[in-house]
Amino acid sequence: MNIAVFGTGSVGQALANRLAELSHQVVIGTRNVENSLQKTQPDGMGTPPIGEFLKNHAHISLQTFADAAKDASVIVLATKGQGAQEALSEAGKLDGKIVLDITNPLDFSKGGLPTLFASNDTSLGEQLQAAFPNVYFVKSLNTMYNGLMVNPRALGEDSTVFVSGNDATAKGVVVGILKEFGWKDSEILDLGDITTARGTESLLPIWLRVYSATKNGFFNFKVATGK
Amino acid sequence: MNIAVFGTGSVGQALANRLAELSHQVVIGTRNVENSLQKTQPDGMGTPPIGEFLKNHAHISLQTFADAAKDASVIVLATKGQGAQEALSEAGKLDGKIVLDITNPLDFSKGGLPTLFASNDTSLGEQLQAAFPNVYFVKSLNTMYNGLMVNPRALGEDSTVFVSGNDATAKGVVVGILKEFGWKDSEILDLGDITTARGTESLLPIWLRVYSATKNGFFNFKVATGK
Repeated sequence: MNIAVFGTGSVGQALANRLAELSHQVVIGTRNVENSLQKTQPDGMGTPPIGEFLKNHAHISLQTFADAAKDASVIVLATKGQGAQEALSEAGKLDGKIVLDITNPLDFSKGGLPTLFASNDTSLGEQLQAAFPNVYFVKSLNTMYNGLMVNPRALGEDSTVFVSGNDATAKGVVVGILKEFGWKDSEILDLGDITTARGTESLLPIWLRVYSATKNGFFNFKVATGK
Repeated sequence: MNIAVFGTGSVGQALANRLAELSHQVVIGTRNVENSLQKTQPDGMGTPPIGEFLKNHAHISLQTFADAAKDASVIVLATKGQGAQEALSEAGKLDGKIVLDITNPLDFSKGGLPTLFASNDTSLGEQLQAAFPNVYFVKSLNTMYNGLMVNPRALGEDSTVFVSGNDATAKGVVVGILKEFGWKDSEILDLGDITTARGTESLLPIWLRVYSATKNGFFNFKVATGK
């Protein structure tokens, strides 16, 4: 498939790398290509700058959001939550495209652990769906470390990936990608329509506290049923 | 131990029953004993009225919050979230006591799935701790169906119970109770101080959506680490 990955950070790089490994045609979208390529330092989490990444991934190109989206049937939205709507707006006409939305509404502005800028009676997933009603949003993968998103078997035990979205066909396409990543059918839990993103985005506060308590982000939530 | 269970609903009954089985001295606290005993119908979830429960549990008595708390070293707070602070206020002097807080800030007033009346940058656990600064609050067990709280082995696989609280000794007492219920050391995750209740209370939105999607409340979240 032609897939555009929006976002040049650790999540975008992990998804682009893995999708290209799986022989998809991958382009990475960014707001300003030149600015993105000018970065020479790793980010706060140690992720190398996108220019470095591209040197090691000759088949992946960096384009503006609009250029990246043009031929893509699936857009992987891996920007910061606060930049998600703007990135989609800059991408031009997206009607009919599928967006695999991995974003979370994290607000880092107050210092300490981030809070959520959309929560409880709304979600970023719903807000994006409302802003782009003719785009097929599927929220998934937003509840774990990016290394596990694209390689769930690395965990060494089964865990859960949630799926939220209004369109069954779009969810089917996303589930297909999840399976390519290595997710088992029994690990994929379709929660229902896009309002269920309130549930998965609300895993961030507990994710952050498990991470703080254990000093280890290499975990995932499992819905344990004994089966 | 002398344990007072505040709350006459399904959670209170499950905890009182199990603690009495484990040979603790258990009293149940309620706002108005007479009113509670006058109920003759099961609640919306099919939980029998407290009068019915007491007939089958001769060693457990129903008392006012204040009477129940008087001799208790541990109070199990299993009221509705919205009634929690009032119940503790009616209980009189609680300084120095341990409160195992199982409540969640669920707001059912809007219809549909409940939202949270405390979330994101606060939690009910913190609010109660702030309202009763000399009480040792330990938030735990609030992230699952009550049958699993008191009998985690029934699930047939390991899962996670979280613990949040400011006082290490109080958390130790609660962890002791968890182990009596059957929780393994490896399943008990101490997240830190009471502010981490923001994390566990935020599991309710996802709990509710897993329940809605699967029509099955007999599950628990597990922090899966592959170990």
